[in-house]
Amino acid sequence: MEERVKCKSLHSKITSAKEAAGMIKSGMTLGTSGFTPTGYPKAVPEALVKMVEKEEDFKINLYTGASVGQSLDGIFAEAGIISKRMPYQTNNSMRKALNSCDVHYADIHLSHFSQQIRYGFYGKIDVALVEAAQITEEGYIVPTTSIGASPVFCSEAEHIIVEINTKKPLELCGIHDIYQPEDPPNRQPIPLVNPVDRIGKPYIEVDPSKIKAIVITDLEDDPIGFAPVDENSRQIAKNLIGFFEKEVEVGRLPEKLLPLQSGVGSVANAVLKGISDSRFKDLIFYSEVIQDNVLDLLDEGTFKFASGTSLTLSPEGFQRFYQNFDEYRSKVLLRPMEISNNPEVIRRIGSIAMNTAIEADIFGNVNSTHIMGSKMMNGIGGSGDFTRASYLSIFTTPSIAKNGDISSIVPMVSHVDHTEHDVNIIVTEQGLADLRGLSPVQRAEAIIENCAHPDYQKPLEEYLNKAKEGSCHTPHTLGDSLSWHEKFVQTKKMR
Amino acid sequence: MEERVKCKSLHSKITSAKEAAGMIKSGMTLGTSGFTPTGYPKAVPEALVKMVEKEEDFKINLYTGASVGQSLDGIFAEAGIISKRMPYQTNNSMRKALNSCDVHYADIHLSHFSQQIRYGFYGKIDVALVEAAQITEEGYIVPTTSIGASPVFCSEAEHIIVEINTKKPLELCGIHDIYQPEDPPNRQPIPLVNPVDRIGKPYIEVDPSKIKAIVITDLEDDPIGFAPVDENSRQIAKNLIGFFEKEVEVGRLPEKLLPLQSGVGSVANAVLKGISDSRFKDLIFYSEVIQDNVLDLLDEGTFKFASGTSLTLSPEGFQRFYQNFDEYRSKVLLRPMEISNNPEVIRRIGSIAMNTAIEADIFGNVNSTHIMGSKMMNGIGGSGDFTRASYLSIFTTPSIAKNGDISSIVPMVSHVDHTEHDVNIIVTEQGLADLRGLSPVQRAEAIIENCAHPDYQKPLEEYLNKAKEGSCHTPHTLGDSLSWHEKFVQTKKMR
Ligand SMILES: CC(C)(COP(=O)(O)OP(=O)(O)OC[C@H]1O[C@@H](n2cnc3c(N)ncnc32)[C@H](O)[C@@H]1OP(=O)(O)O)[C@@H](O)C(=O)NCCC(=O)NCCS
Ligand SMILES: CC(C)(COP(=O)(O)OP(=O)(O)OC[C@H]1O[C@@H](n2cnc3c(N)ncnc32)[C@H](O)[C@@H]1OP(=O)(O)O)[C@@H](O)C(=O)NCCC(=O)NCCS
Repeated sequence: MEERVKCKSLHSKITSAKEAAGMIKSGMTLGTSGFTPTGYPKAVPEALVKMVEKEEDFKINLYTGASVGQSLDGIFAEAGIISKRMPYQTNNSMRKALNSCDVHYADIHLSHFSQQIRYGFYGKIDVALVEAAQITEEGYIVPTTSIGASPVFCSEAEHIIVEINTKKPLELCGIHDIYQPEDPPNRQPIPLVNPVDRIGKPYIEVDPSKIKAIVITDLEDDPIGFAPVDENSRQIAKNLIGFFEKEVEVGRLPEKLLPLQSGVGSVANAVLKGISDSRFKDLIFYSEVIQDNVLDLLDEGTFKFASGTSLTLSPEGFQRFYQNFDEYRSKVLLRPMEISNNPEVIRRIGSIAMNTAIEADIFGNVNSTHIMGSKMMNGIGGSGDFTRASYLSIFTTPSIAKNGDISSIVPMVSHVDHTEHDVNIIVTEQGLADLRGLSPVQRAEAIIENCAHPDYQKPLEEYLNKAKEGSCHTPHTLGDSLSWHEKFVQTKKMR
Repeated sequence: MEERVKCKSLHSKITSAKEAAGMIKSGMTLGTSGFTPTGYPKAVPEALVKMVEKEEDFKINLYTGASVGQSLDGIFAEAGIISKRMPYQTNNSMRKALNSCDVHYADIHLSHFSQQIRYGFYGKIDVALVEAAQITEEGYIVPTTSIGASPVFCSEAEHIIVEINTKKPLELCGIHDIYQPEDPPNRQPIPLVNPVDRIGKPYIEVDPSKIKAIVITDLEDDPIGFAPVDENSRQIAKNLIGFFEKEVEVGRLPEKLLPLQSGVGSVANAVLKGISDSRFKDLIFYSEVIQDNVLDLLDEGTFKFASGTSLTLSPEGFQRFYQNFDEYRSKVLLRPMEISNNPEVIRRIGSIAMNTAIEADIFGNVNSTHIMGSKMMNGIGGSGDFTRASYLSIFTTPSIAKNGDISSIVPMVSHVDHTEHDVNIIVTEQGLADLRGLSPVQRAEAIIENCAHPDYQKPLEEYLNKAKEGSCHTPHTLGDSLSWHEKFVQTKKMR
């Protein structure tokens, strides 16, 4: 334990999960570590749920970095103890709870969230609950496999509870680079100029007197699932790589491209795999989530550096990571999500943002969050942060969903997360539409021709042609714009 | 003339507008100065239109800073010689042309436009045509009353034509601060930390050998119209000031607020007037357009500094400006729109972004550009640049339009320019909705209660309640979502 809690004066704070959970009262706002199901606290949440099982009306607000695992989001949602949830989630039970409006969910750009906590927009943080690998001699906190919003929770919270997770090896110390900007009007330029730059400290500086409880645990994160790469996704990746090759040819991208960001999900996975099979080498990955396939890309030299805010590896991935830590140490860096997703940095380094759409419309608007305009899937996450500040913004999606009962290219998206002003490229397995500098009608023609599934091309053309009779900049026949979705809601088929 | 064209070797380039216009050939892309109807070229456009009057199929692409006047946008659109137009316009004839799809208009965030020109996204700039007050000894160009995208046009164009406008006094020299960032991967932090900082040169550095023609002219810019401040707008301003006062009280804003940005139009005007009548003093204005009322605010000490990319003054305003130039010189600065609208800078300084919506929906999505989803009004301009990077993003709109036949608060906006993720505050004459941290249903309740016109509150509640039966995160009944707009298109009444 001496090795894990180096600050002697804090030894007296070591306590049970139950004791620590007792500090969390109804009405409080809890800010936890965690970004993707890794690096989030598990022992205290479990104890809390047990403790309040029979309490009626126990409700807290849960703020995190981004998504967290079943043993936090899941059990809290199932216990019905969450009032407000921010800023992102991917958990089944949580999704159910927020879609039935039992939980008030605010879906917020990840890069905005940390600063808006500091600005006081979301109220006071009563308790920061963070998983740590170590507490330093000074009483500072070394996070584990993700950073997310932990720095701001620790600086803003009244009390801090630390879960020391002994399953997370001490080798993690040194992989973090923690920097928190000042707030306006005193903010200085963020000194990150090259994605490999270290600009902060390897720990979260906190006032040690705020640490009220330290819980020792060895609970594992939820195992990470991997979506298999299917033929459609492979083809999407191929179309995208072909595009990169052409951009290099005409001189709009350098041979080593520009720092890549990659979204989450099955298509995003396939795209990374596609890059691995391409001629590109020595690339920089500046993104959020470092998955197993990023290790592959680092090993083979396709990537020479990877910066993120979370290590989202499989058990085998972690084993590999820790065993070769000396090598990865110089190639992998974790940052707070306020930095990994910071538009100042993203615009400066010139990211290539690659994110997945649920659906796109013929005019280039993208829906990343809502099924049929109403049901929340996950949230916008960092996709807006990267898209809007990127050098080049790309959205991928299979052209159809649900075996073709849904066209992912529609006359009008049922919810807009990324506007026509922000979407440069749309790629499906059918092809790629380069929307840069096109008017709405030109965009529609390009998207229908290159991206729509053959079964839906004609109906889309018909929609466009009919709408064009109205003679307008963005031709729409409002009575029909959402009729495809409407039809699906009623018949489970868009056709 | 010696005073205006100080570079002797360029005197041989002085020529007639007709001669200069002859250098512009069909198929070319023209990048001109101008941002709002001020500082745009007028002599060469006039000559060009005369020259090609009888030519069939003469078409050029017109790229500008933002909107320009009738004597450029208007006459080009009326002559039918524009193929592509970017990135913003406000001209009647141009609006007609693009809404009939005779002109391909791409509506682009102003801060993106300059860098994307450099990135080569919009093709080659054949000719930069810029209005200037002076050419320096080195052959550098001193702009006049706006900067917009002139620096990038000059650096990227093959040829440059300069219109020296003798109606623009030499006093303008020194008011410009021109800085162009490097492109990724070599971009450095933009060194602007305080809105008053000078970071560049008072002229556009160009390769003088690219200057192929210099035309001397004394043509005036179109006179600027001012919308009168009506009672509704006054009330919107009042609601907003009350909100600022409360934010200061609870410590979320400093007493001197944070740098203000203000959009364009009649409501925006009223808001500035409202600030003048408030208790706030010594504020910083970091925006795009400096209008007469900004001079008022500077004179009375409400503002202590104003940074923009264009001086959009009335003839009396200009007279006043030039007469008191010694005083204004230290208080007013013009920057390229790539800097005035730069999200890196805006986020760093913590702007309060105040823009006008055409309509907003109950979930907080904002439409700034499209009438009934189809007809382009102006464009997104800089509203997205500021909104997304701001400390606090505010949208104002009267709750109704067309004498109440239209509700500006609707179930679903017919076009999205600013998503629910980006809109903090909505203000109408009815009141103010603070959307920070609210779930969609909570937002809907706040907007209906505080912002909707009494005549439309009930129908909005009915929409929400019916949609809520579907039990979803963002309740919508897709068959009804756009029915208000549909009804208006058919009957000219939403009710
Ligand atoms: C958009 C997103 C959900 C796609 O993820 P994915 O794993 O590639 O998507 P899938 O193809 O598995 O589709 C997910 C589900 O949506 C359904 N779906 C896909 N397209 C659809 C459409 N157009 N309409 C309705 N449903 C659709 C799929 O059928 C699937 O449903 P199921 O869960 O019932 O099987 C995911 O990328 C996301 O949450 N993005 C937003 C956040 C983000 O971009 N983060 C990255 C930067 S941080
Ligand atoms: C949105 C915008 C058009 C409002 O301007 P404004 O002068 O305050 O608006 P007005 O109240 O005069 O309305 C303009 C027109 O739209 C109409 N209108 C207003 N609300 C409407 C609505 N909800 N539905 C349909 N029409 C509407 C008005 O009736 C008026 O029509 P008219 O021209 O036929 O008289 C203007 O601010 C704009 O172009 N914004 C986008 C760019 C921007 O924000 N730039 C600022 C940062 S650079």
